[in-house]
Amino acid sequence: MRRIAESTVRRLSLYLRFLEEFEHQGIKTVSSEALAARGSGGTTPAQVRKDLSFFGSFGKRGLGYDVRALATRIRDILGLKRRYRVALVGAGKVGSALVQYEGFRDRGFEIVAIYDRDPKKIGERWNGVVVRDVGHLEADLKRSPVDIAIVVTPAAAAQDVVDRLVSSGVRGILNFAPTSINVPSTVALKTVNMAQELETLSFALARK
Amino acid sequence: MRRIAESTVRRLSLYLRFLEEFEHQGIKTVSSEALAARGSGGTTPAQVRKDLSFFGSFGKRGLGYDVRALATRIRDILGLKRRYRVALVGAGKVGSALVQYEGFRDRGFEIVAIYDRDPKKIGERWNGVVVRDVGHLEADLKRSPVDIAIVVTPAAAAQDVVDRLVSSGVRGILNFAPTSINVPSTVALKTVNMAQELETLSFALARK
Repeated sequence: MRRIAESTVRRLSLYLRFLEEFEHQGIKTVSSEALAARGSGGTTPAQVRKDLSFFGSFGKRGLGYDVRALATRIRDILGLKRRYRVALVGAGKVGSALVQYEGFRDRGFEIVAIYDRDPKKIGERWNGVVVRDVGHLEADLKRSPVDIAIVVTPAAAAQDVVDRLVSSGVRGILNFAPTSINVPSTVALKTVNMAQELETLSFALARK
Repeated sequence: MRRIAESTVRRLSLYLRFLEEFEHQGIKTVSSEALAARGSGGTTPAQVRKDLSFFGSFGKRGLGYDVRALATRIRDILGLKRRYRVALVGAGKVGSALVQYEGFRDRGFEIVAIYDRDPKKIGERWNGVVVRDVGHLEADLKRSPVDIAIVVTPAAAAQDVVDRLVSSGVRGILNFAPTSINVPSTVALKTVNMAQELETLSFALARK
C-alpha cells in the first residue's frame, strides 16, 4: 500500500465523526459536498472524493455514499475495529484530564494502567484504575501487555520511560512530554506539543 | 508569499527548539545533518535545507548555520518576536493543566484572562488570574482585548463561545472541544482532538 499522509488520516478521522453524526440523525446517504461542508472550511468535495477513492471505490455517482458502509470502512482503515489497551505514565493534571476523556473509550482506547513515581499519587484510584509505582512497569506489562502508552512525564524523564515501554513491547506512543523522543522504526510515535500548536497559530496570525 | 504547509511550520517550530538547546550548550554553528539527527527520525538533512531555503538563504556551504541567527530568523517567521495575550475559556482539568504549562509563557503566550460559567469556579485564582463569569466576555475583551483564545468548553458550547470571541476581535482560536468549529477566513483556527491523535496511532499500528 502506498504511504498515506498524516493529513489524510486526520481527515478520515474527521469524516468518520461526521458520518457518525449523520447516522445518528437517521441519514442514509451523503454526498461528498455534504461531507466537505461539515468539515469547517478547508476541505473541498474534490478532496473528500480523492481521500476516499484512495482506499477503493465507495460512492455511487449521483447517489452519494452509503453512510453506514462508509463509516464501517473508515473504522477498518483507521484500525478502529478492535480495542486498544492503553497505559498512562504520569499521573499529573494532564494525565487526569486524559483519563476522564470519554472520547478515548468511545473509540476503543481503554486506559487499563496508570503509573507515577510520586508516593502521594501511588495507590490513588482514577476512574477505577489504581495508580501504580512506575517501578513496576516492566513486570506489569510482561504479565498484562498494553498496545499503546500515553507519556505525560516531565521532559527529562520521557526518553527513559519510552525506552522501557518499548522494551516491554509497547508499539504505539502518544507523547505529551515537551521534548523530542526517539523510538525504533517498528514503533508508532505521535507527539503532542501544546506550545507548537500555539506557534502554528502565531505563524498564521503573523501572516493575516 | 507562497502558502506554507502546516507540516513545514511544525518542523520550523521543532528546529527552533533544537537551536535553542544548541545555543544553551554554547554551540555556535550547526549543520543540517545535526539538525535532522536531533529531529527523532523522519527528518532528513535535505528536508532541513529545503525547509530553511524556503525562507531565504541561511547556511554557508561547509560551515553550516549560525545557531543564534537562524533561531532569530525562525522566531521572526513564526511570529514569535512579540507577546500574545491569551484568554482561556473553560476552567476544567485541561484548562488547569494549560494554565500551568510553562511552555506557553516561555514562548510569549500569556494567559491573561480565564472564563467559566460554573459559579463554583468563578472567583478562583489560577496562576494569579481570577476566573471570571463567561457572561463578562464581551465587555472584558472590549476593555482589554486578547489576540488568541483557548477554548476548552464542552462540545455543545464551543461554537457559541467561538462566535462570541470572534465578534470580540479574537483572531486566533485553539480549540480543544471535541467538535468541529467554524470561523471566518480572517481568523486562524487550530483544533486539538485527543481521540484523533490516538487514531493516527491506531492507523499506524494497523499497518505495522
